[in-house]
Amino acid sequence: MSLAAQVQSGDRRALSRAITCVENGDPEARGLLEELYPRVGKARRIGFTGPPGVGKSTLVSELARHWRAAGKTVGIVAVDPSSPFTGGALLGDRIRMNAIGTDPGVFIRSMATRGALGGLARATYDVCDVLDAAGKDVVLVETVGVGQSEIEIVRVADTTVVILSPESGDGVQAMKSGLMEIADVIVINKADRPGADALETQIRSSFELSTSRRPPELVQTAAATGKGIAEAASAIEAHTEKLEKDGALRDHRAARLRFRIGRLVEEALSRRLSHDAAAAAWLDERVDRVLAGRMTPGDAAEEMLDRLTAGPGRGTAPRPARLAR
Amino acid sequence: MSLAAQVQSGDRRALSRAITCVENGDPEARGLLEELYPRVGKARRIGFTGPPGVGKSTLVSELARHWRAAGKTVGIVAVDPSSPFTGGALLGDRIRMNAIGTDPGVFIRSMATRGALGGLARATYDVCDVLDAAGKDVVLVETVGVGQSEIEIVRVADTTVVILSPESGDGVQAMKSGLMEIADVIVINKADRPGADALETQIRSSFELSTSRRPPELVQTAAATGKGIAEAASAIEAHTEKLEKDGALRDHRAARLRFRIGRLVEEALSRRLSHDAAAAAWLDERVDRVLAGRMTPGDAAEEMLDRLTAGPGRGTAPRPARLAR
Repeated sequence: MSLAAQVQSGDRRALSRAITCVENGDPEARGLLEELYPRVGKARRIGFTGPPGVGKSTLVSELARHWRAAGKTVGIVAVDPSSPFTGGALLGDRIRMNAIGTDPGVFIRSMATRGALGGLARATYDVCDVLDAAGKDVVLVETVGVGQSEIEIVRVADTTVVILSPESGDGVQAMKSGLMEIADVIVINKADRPGADALETQIRSSFELSTSRRPPELVQTAAATGKGIAEAASAIEAHTEKLEKDGALRDHRAARLRFRIGRLVEEALSRRLSHDAAAAAWLDERVDRVLAGRMTPGDAAEEMLDRLTAGPGRGTAPRPARLAR
Repeated sequence: MSLAAQVQSGDRRALSRAITCVENGDPEARGLLEELYPRVGKARRIGFTGPPGVGKSTLVSELARHWRAAGKTVGIVAVDPSSPFTGGALLGDRIRMNAIGTDPGVFIRSMATRGALGGLARATYDVCDVLDAAGKDVVLVETVGVGQSEIEIVRVADTTVVILSPESGDGVQAMKSGLMEIADVIVINKADRPGADALETQIRSSFELSTSRRPPELVQTAAATGKGIAEAASAIEAHTEKLEKDGALRDHRAARLRFRIGRLVEEALSRRLSHDAAAAAWLDERVDRVLAGRMTPGDAAEEMLDRLTAGPGRGTAPRPARLAR
């Protein structure tokens, strides 16, 4: 039985191996994804983001437990910014594992972002596809820490949940960072601490002042005690169901896919370039010219695109730069 | 006299017009940059990033004042995440303008990131080039708020300064977010508040635990009172001078430039695609296939690259998908 077939049969160890395979970009990954792809697209993908310390892991675990109780299977992808300093996040994972990790209907995977410079791990998309093909009804993607991943979560999720807490000025921070604009649902977690209502009022009034979009649903939770979890789950489900009813879910997924294909083209391009000594030398020469002020980066890019679209073998000889002097 | 010549002659209004031109991507921007480019490369570019509320604007203003006193001209680019909620940042700008905005040797420009999804404004690179060509000795780039821009600053700067404050758990947050890995110099601002020494100890010990890199210089400042500004300026200058002595500055700039050209190729590519109805239809068809589970995104990307490199006019007819069924 192929690895893909084992994954589809519900074999947890095979699922774990398949995720490692796509995460590492192993040579078998392409064939594996091709075999799995006909089963991809059924899972609801929900992204969770927010500043550190708001209780993301606890909330995600409680939501997983809620959906498990409703008979759904759950995959969790925790994206870790892979700093050498992130002992804390890994510890959090271990604590969570104790709470829901023994449930055979839950599969949890932590991913490091590696060299992605703060971005969402390159393979996050593929890992979600694998969990989807493995038959998980819900895939929860959680970003850990601050950075680009917070915003990029919209590239992976059907529904994006922004989590805040009444503590440490999260509200102001989130408004400044563009987080509010990507929220389909806002959860104020740790709502049993002082300031939750004030934060809710603050958020609601900023949306009233802004004419740019309809305000997202806003729910207060205290995940550590289970308060508000059912309401948060309902708000998330309502968003995805509305998307589906409108036909917007397909449009949303198509837009994401266009972006994803674009990124993959880019990756494939740089992979090809790194194996093409003539192209690398060609680029080095352009870089030298730009550093010497004899050419702009924009002109180098245009020439490079001309060279690429001129087809293999052609255009290898340096063309005269527009700015040659 | 051309706009480029006016910029080089030190005309402030021309400089302002030139920046607007490249920021908007006006049709004249390409020619303008070509004319300016021979003068680009002399300015030291210093990036400033850190969580909101640490006093970035004040520190940058005080450093600008310090370098002005040393006889250098200064350009400041403040990148604003252009949220509809960012009244605060603009107010901060106005306050800063009062402090150093009247000095003819300082030129300040705020830029919105617009649709860049939390990223550094697309045009930031070009705006720095314009300020460089205008003869500014130092160009200070400051990111406002949280998000991708914090990390992307390394794509623009010769030296990256990460600013923290003893307040609100910035240390932990920065360690989790990958900010520490990009820091060439760490400034603990608001060091007159409690906790500055504890934060310094915490940061130093995390670097001791991590073997991945040499710890950056660490300076304590209280920008609002001017304390530590000279030390921060020295630490920054020392980093750039060391880079230059090692020959690493050129390598660093070449690496940045490769990345930048890559981005520009991508932009040019999507611009060409958006003007090519056949290509757009071709992509739509692939998106449909992927959504139907009949093709993986990776295979769509590979086909697209084949199509691109097959040259114009060729490859327009849909090629059989590897996964056709």
